[in-house]
Amino acid sequence: MEIQILLYDRMTALDAIGPYECLSRLDDAIIKMVGSTKGEIRTDTGFLGLTVDHSVNDVGPCDIILLPGGDSRAAMADEEIKSWIIRQHETTRFTTSVCTGSLILAAAGVIPNGKIASHWGAEKIIPKFGLSYSGERITQNGKIITAAGVSAGIDMGLWLCEALSDREMAQAIGLGLEYNPQPPHPYRDDDKLREIAIKKVT
Amino acid sequence: MEIQILLYDRMTALDAIGPYECLSRLDDAIIKMVGSTKGEIRTDTGFLGLTVDHSVNDVGPCDIILLPGGDSRAAMADEEIKSWIIRQHETTRFTTSVCTGSLILAAAGVIPNGKIASHWGAEKIIPKFGLSYSGERITQNGKIITAAGVSAGIDMGLWLCEALSDREMAQAIGLGLEYNPQPPHPYRDDDKLREIAIKKVT
Repeated sequence: MEIQILLYDRMTALDAIGPYECLSRLDDAIIKMVGSTKGEIRTDTGFLGLTVDHSVNDVGPCDIILLPGGDSRAAMADEEIKSWIIRQHETTRFTTSVCTGSLILAAAGVIPNGKIASHWGAEKIIPKFGLSYSGERITQNGKIITAAGVSAGIDMGLWLCEALSDREMAQAIGLGLEYNPQPPHPYRDDDKLREIAIKKVT
Repeated sequence: MEIQILLYDRMTALDAIGPYECLSRLDDAIIKMVGSTKGEIRTDTGFLGLTVDHSVNDVGPCDIILLPGGDSRAAMADEEIKSWIIRQHETTRFTTSVCTGSLILAAAGVIPNGKIASHWGAEKIIPKFGLSYSGERITQNGKIITAAGVSAGIDMGLWLCEALSDREMAQAIGLGLEYNPQPPHPYRDDDKLREIAIKKVT
């Protein structure tokens, strides 16, 4: 089973690394980090470099593609990335995204209609693609699976592990990752906090 | 505020990327990815390359060091890494680890006694260092903060954000990351599942 994860400049690292860490532990998984050109990309903070091992032009068909979010504007406008998405989507088992990665899928035109998950900050942009914001952690729209912002990629990663294997294997992978979250403070979502948070999101 | 995160061959990516994603959103944070030599390291799965931007020999003092886990045996035996830990720990505000990264701290001798958190798979190794396994998500032992396995680094990252700033800022960062976990299945921890999981952990 081959999973291709797109890496691009100014992406958010955890969007890709969360599901990578889950999916890479499936027994038969091969993960390929793909991008416009082979070599290093720098994430949105500028503090981290990730390696693109394969050009999107050089990879064959695969079972899953995964689009991380971040500052996805350049990726949305990139014709080679768009061609890769359209080509792969024809034969994937699941076409997936985390955070604003769903906007890259939408811009490529592979989501005909319905709801998608994304970062809450993208709620007002999504209708421009003729789609609606689900507000859900994980949204299934046919074989397109979209997750909410950043950390939601871990939940989606384990969801995919269960869909591709079985619940026990997904739980074993969750146990290996000790995914028994204990956030150190309550989750808070209000206008004041969104204003602070949005300045930190590209 | 400068945070130095160690990257090394065969580390587990999420151990570092979870807290990186939290801490990098603090207003005044500078994060440096450090390692034995500058350039690419490959993570434990072989599927991902991360960039070491600074040699541990070339960096000045900093506020926080963070040690990720994974196959940490080579890092535990590396004299340059050990010197970096000992040198930095003299003046850090927090000396931190995720997963078996706590074994690297223990091997460097900076934890004189008491409890540390780690991956559950390391429970029997920890007493060899004269320390005990806490079994907690996050354990504070003086200024040494250790987290449980892999995904626990996100909880620790937000804990550190609160300690370094305040609860509202940490909650804003959590909101930006949409860290409101909704695991797709119940967390399960028993002998059968540990046997499956341990084969996937290096």
